Amino acid sequence: MIEFTPTREQYVYTFGGVAPQMRVKPGTALRLWSDDAFGGALRTVEDLSSAKVDLRFVNPQTGPFYVEGAEPGDTLVLHLVDLVPARDWAASAAIPFFGGMTGTDRTVNLQPALPDTTWIYELDRDRNTVAFTARHSDHRVELPVEPMLGTVGVAPAGGEVRSSLVPDRFGGNMDTPEMRAGATVYLGVNVEGAMFSVGDGHYRQGEGEACGTAVEGAMTTTLIVDLVKGHAPGWPRIETDTHLMAIGSSRPMEDSWRIGNAELVHWVSELCGLHVMDAYQLCSQIAQVPVANVVDANYSVVVKAAKRLLPRAEAYGGIHAELRARARSLGPL
Amino acid sequence: MIEFTPTREQYVYTFGGVAPQMRVKPGTALRLWSDDAFGGALRTVEDLSSAKVDLRFVNPQTGPFYVEGAEPGDTLVLHLVDLVPARDWAASAAIPFFGGMTGTDRTVNLQPALPDTTWIYELDRDRNTVAFTARHSDHRVELPVEPMLGTVGVAPAGGEVRSSLVPDRFGGNMDTPEMRAGATVYLGVNVEGAMFSVGDGHYRQGEGEACGTAVEGAMTTTLIVDLVKGHAPGWPRIETDTHLMAIGSSRPMEDSWRIGNAELVHWVSELCGLHVMDAYQLCSQIAQVPVANVVDANYSVVVKAAKRLLPRAEAYGGIHAELRARARSLGPL
Amino acid sequence: MIEFTPTREQYVYTFGGVAPQMRVKPGTALRLWSDDAFGGALRTVEDLSSAKVDLRFVNPQTGPFYVEGAEPGDTLVLHLVDLVPARDWAASAAIPFFGGMTGTDRTVNLQPALPDTTWIYELDRDRNTVAFTARHSDHRVELPVEPMLGTVGVAPAGGEVRSSLVPDRFGGNMDTPEMRAGATVYLGVNVEGAMFSVGDGHYRQGEGEACGTAVEGAMTTTLIVDLVKGHAPGWPRIETDTHLMAIGSSRPMEDSWRIGNAELVHWVSELCGLHVMDAYQLCSQIAQVPVANVVDANYSVVVKAAKRLLPRAEAYGGIHAELRARARSLGPL
Amino acid sequence: MIEFTPTREQYVYTFGGVAPQMRVKPGTALRLWSDDAFGGALRTVEDLSSAKVDLRFVNPQTGPFYVEGAEPGDTLVLHLVDLVPARDWAASAAIPFFGGMTGTDRTVNLQPALPDTTWIYELDRDRNTVAFTARHSDHRVELPVEPMLGTVGVAPAGGEVRSSLVPDRFGGNMDTPEMRAGATVYLGVNVEGAMFSVGDGHYRQGEGEACGTAVEGAMTTTLIVDLVKGHAPGWPRIETDTHLMAIGSSRPMEDSWRIGNAELVHWVSELCGLHVMDAYQLCSQIAQVPVANVVDANYSVVVKAAKRLLPRAEAYGGIHAELRARARSLGPL
Repeated sequence: MIEFTPTREQYVYTFGGVAPQMRVKPGTALRLWSDDAFGGALRTVEDLSSAKVDLRFVNPQTGPFYVEGAEPGDTLVLHLVDLVPARDWAASAAIPFFGGMTGTDRTVNLQPALPDTTWIYELDRDRNTVAFTARHSDHRVELPVEPMLGTVGVAPAGGEVRSSLVPDRFGGNMDTPEMRAGATVYLGVNVEGAMFSVGDGHYRQGEGEACGTAVEGAMTTTLIVDLVKGHAPGWPRIETDTHLMAIGSSRPMEDSWRIGNAELVHWVSELCGLHVMDAYQLCSQIAQVPVANVVDANYSVVVKAAKRLLPRAEAYGGIHAELRARARSLGPL
Repeated sequence: MIEFTPTREQYVYTFGGVAPQMRVKPGTALRLWSDDAFGGALRTVEDLSSAKVDLRFVNPQTGPFYVEGAEPGDTLVLHLVDLVPARDWAASAAIPFFGGMTGTDRTVNLQPALPDTTWIYELDRDRNTVAFTARHSDHRVELPVEPMLGTVGVAPAGGEVRSSLVPDRFGGNMDTPEMRAGATVYLGVNVEGAMFSVGDGHYRQGEGEACGTAVEGAMTTTLIVDLVKGHAPGWPRIETDTHLMAIGSSRPMEDSWRIGNAELVHWVSELCGLHVMDAYQLCSQIAQVPVANVVDANYSVVVKAAKRLLPRAEAYGGIHAELRARARSLGPL
Repeated sequence: MIEFTPTREQYVYTFGGVAPQMRVKPGTALRLWSDDAFGGALRTVEDLSSAKVDLRFVNPQTGPFYVEGAEPGDTLVLHLVDLVPARDWAASAAIPFFGGMTGTDRTVNLQPALPDTTWIYELDRDRNTVAFTARHSDHRVELPVEPMLGTVGVAPAGGEVRSSLVPDRFGGNMDTPEMRAGATVYLGVNVEGAMFSVGDGHYRQGEGEACGTAVEGAMTTTLIVDLVKGHAPGWPRIETDTHLMAIGSSRPMEDSWRIGNAELVHWVSELCGLHVMDAYQLCSQIAQVPVANVVDANYSVVVKAAKRLLPRAEAYGGIHAELRARARSLGPL
Repeated sequence: MIEFTPTREQYVYTFGGVAPQMRVKPGTALRLWSDDAFGGALRTVEDLSSAKVDLRFVNPQTGPFYVEGAEPGDTLVLHLVDLVPARDWAASAAIPFFGGMTGTDRTVNLQPALPDTTWIYELDRDRNTVAFTARHSDHRVELPVEPMLGTVGVAPAGGEVRSSLVPDRFGGNMDTPEMRAGATVYLGVNVEGAMFSVGDGHYRQGEGEACGTAVEGAMTTTLIVDLVKGHAPGWPRIETDTHLMAIGSSRPMEDSWRIGNAELVHWVSELCGLHVMDAYQLCSQIAQVPVANVVDANYSVVVKAAKRLLPRAEAYGGIHAELRARARSLGPL
């Protein structure tokens, strides 16, 4: 087990364009500490995002890691073993002109901004909850902790470098609650070494991430990295014990859905030996489509199918089951 | 209990613009038969939609019903007691230039059409399944029956008349699996009598309804109609034992989401006495956002919140719980 | 020449759903008075739209007119001979939550509204200008009068009735400056008699109609109505002495463009005997694409081609040239 | 006058991420040769894009150039003096799954591709035309040469590196016919030296660039580079003798328009001392909105206002007029 906690100087804010923090072999287990989306800048409700947050430098990434043997066209496999909150508090904010219920730098308008507001959530590890405390009214409620990673990605193709605010074909800031312990992520490799990184831990997040930020917290992530030669998926895929998923990230949101749905249909078609029209029909009747985010540079939509409703088949040679077993062999974390 | 099965001459294909089939008092239970989306035209895999289906006349509606006392600004309440497949088979089709994985009359392109294909599903009432049989490959799988209604709506405002293919502010063809037994639907009344109708039964449907059609089948729907004076919601709302939901239907899909999310935030804000910024924040961390359809004249997105994570409050004076009790008192159906 | 000025009771606010004002034969010249979009409600800068305008009842239409012999599948031809401002002033307004630089009922947000503001423009018939006077700053400028009609449409298909705020396949509130004197409009007929109407005169309008309203003024429109049996276009087309145009109206705006572009490509292909791929290529290099509106229920985009760059051909048997000649024969107006 | 023709090894395919070809002082005139979008790979109609073009490496850029003294927050000024076709032929192509009338990698569908087709245009310098020759039908027409640059951009902010297929806030592949001789372009500087480059010459292009490619040709561009300290615009701006313009590039297309329109409104407001609501109103009545492209990674929309309808004011201290004068002083080119 390799453990890595970046110093503040080691934070990176892009996918691509930076030198690796270290080289790892396929099969390696890693324990990675990542700071929250704000780099820890919002610690009290008096810390306002307009003063403390520069949107060009959010979602500090832990990484990138150079995976030995990974070449363009290969499939990087990341199995999330465990996600544990690394602080006893988390923060969320309504950042002016950022989020789903406000004009933004893209959906521009001339209206006045919403009030810049910060919420601080307290973690209760025994109860496994975070407490929401209203800021403009009188209410407090404990919400279950459901840890997830907002950003998991590799270096993009074609020499591009993208902000860690962006989700796209290379993964990145997809902001889906499906990115949780037990999930195996498949990402197409674009450059030698794949150069993956993770960050943007959420102690919980609603689908859509409506206000633009989740319950943002530092996270300790245990994962196993592996590699399948070739077979790069077109877009990020996730496998769990129960589901196959594909994630599209684009604009408008129907394009994100089209991407995710086509990726799932093709995956099911190839995996199960179904004609693409039959896979299209079957997925039409069984798919679940939870929205991931409607607030980032691209919107992300998850399209998923329950394995029990699909023809029996082992994706990527059954690597998910193997990694689940290996994760258990790591013992209590 | 009023029972009503329309003759073929009584099918209607619009919301608004038609005379009521009958008048009903608030509190009435109705048992309604509705034909499938194709008007029963696709009975074998040889029945192709290009020959048998005219998209201007699909989703035949059962109704409309004039609800006594309903006036513009009121809230029509429909509690779905029970949905039972009314035939032993159902149909689905990839209609040329209709659906999510093809160009359409809006997202126009110059590419050749996908192959016009019909699938017939057999119902097994004992196992509560419908059987999918592949058409272009060799596969058969039984899928759970999960009955729902594609279309539930009232007459639109401003004298408009809309096709039963359209979902919008008046409800209509929202095509969400949430429209199932146990759900209470709230719709704003736009004209005297509300003029609601139902139709487009689905024995099951994936979220997104990707190919444009679900497992389309005739349905027997038992529902209780009720009325709340005033308090018309801006957009359709659904309440279940566990969730509050709002449904936005527009284009592009992010606008559907914006509508549904704002409607939920305002509902939670008013119901729970939370400042709108606090309701925005809370919903951001707890919302679930299952896509309903990405294939109709407008795309529909459901935004929902679990009641257990919200401040305790009774929506519409607790009418959902009352209707649940009344439904039970109707006895075995 | 038939002259018609509706009484206020004769104003209609929908396409479809209303009885004809009168029957006219193909070939008839009509002189029609239409009120402004606000029904004349904004007469001074103190008349605010929040108090005086109900968005369900704007764009009062003059009509509808039943065209004798028009049947579904035919092509209604309207040649705009002359458009003359019918008042010496016009109005424009930034209506709260309506327009392009604000959240709307579709692109919903939680921000405060823009200030409700009305501008009154004075007409100078000698100089052929309207004078803009700033409301929140000190500036006055005369702008050329360039009269156009915002709404020209027929009854929709499938029994639908649409608000006069809506542009779609039936024409309607397309809000393009191309709808000016000298233009011949081709609209597909959906119901017997076609049932066309006009309204929403603009003394001038920028492309996009950004704030949601143009320089809105009562208008006297002289037009000749004609009919081509069959050949209904899929979407509205316009022909001038110099250009062929098609207008798409949908959402998102790229879909409006796709519609307009495909309609133009097919028109050029059929008219000029070009393979559709060659028409696609040629139009790609010569098209002009002025945005019409980004503020209505659907967004409208014009796609146009200069006739001089196309193979020589007579659209609809040269009817535009005939109508131009007939218009001249009407003498000074 | 500095002349620069890149060797093939000097072609670059990104904005950002590459070392400068040379350093230039503000005020320098440059004569730059750029290859066509395909890097010259399509020379006959038998050269198909599926075989010869890799979409990750198109639009080879000439540059980047390090402008001395340019710092983040400054305004890079590029005055296009002259654009001259550098070959006697040009190429266009319908690339499979690329362009406006086909599904793409974003607007994904399952339909078969359009036929991969290449068109070669012959230049006639005397007549100043390019000849279109149909490929699937029998037609030939000469079209006026109207040279423009598809890509003009600087290095992006936040350490991003973007493909030369992408238009965005940094400029890039905006593909607008407004980028022609006589135009002065204003771009916000994001990195020291600005690092601008140009490429993707078009001998002509229709608005929208419907099929995905223009009449693509090698180009000799004469331009003068200059610098204004500070005052970085939010998005690319263009000034000509007659118009002010802003260009938005995003998705969906209404967001591109919102960006461009807001940028123009703010520019007019600041330049002319108009309250933003008055600038909004005035622009609403005078703007022209020619679509640039609906086919790239982002869609681009130009929003422009005629100077003669605006309060008299000198943008950027009258630099456009100065550069026009300097261009004339360069003598015959």
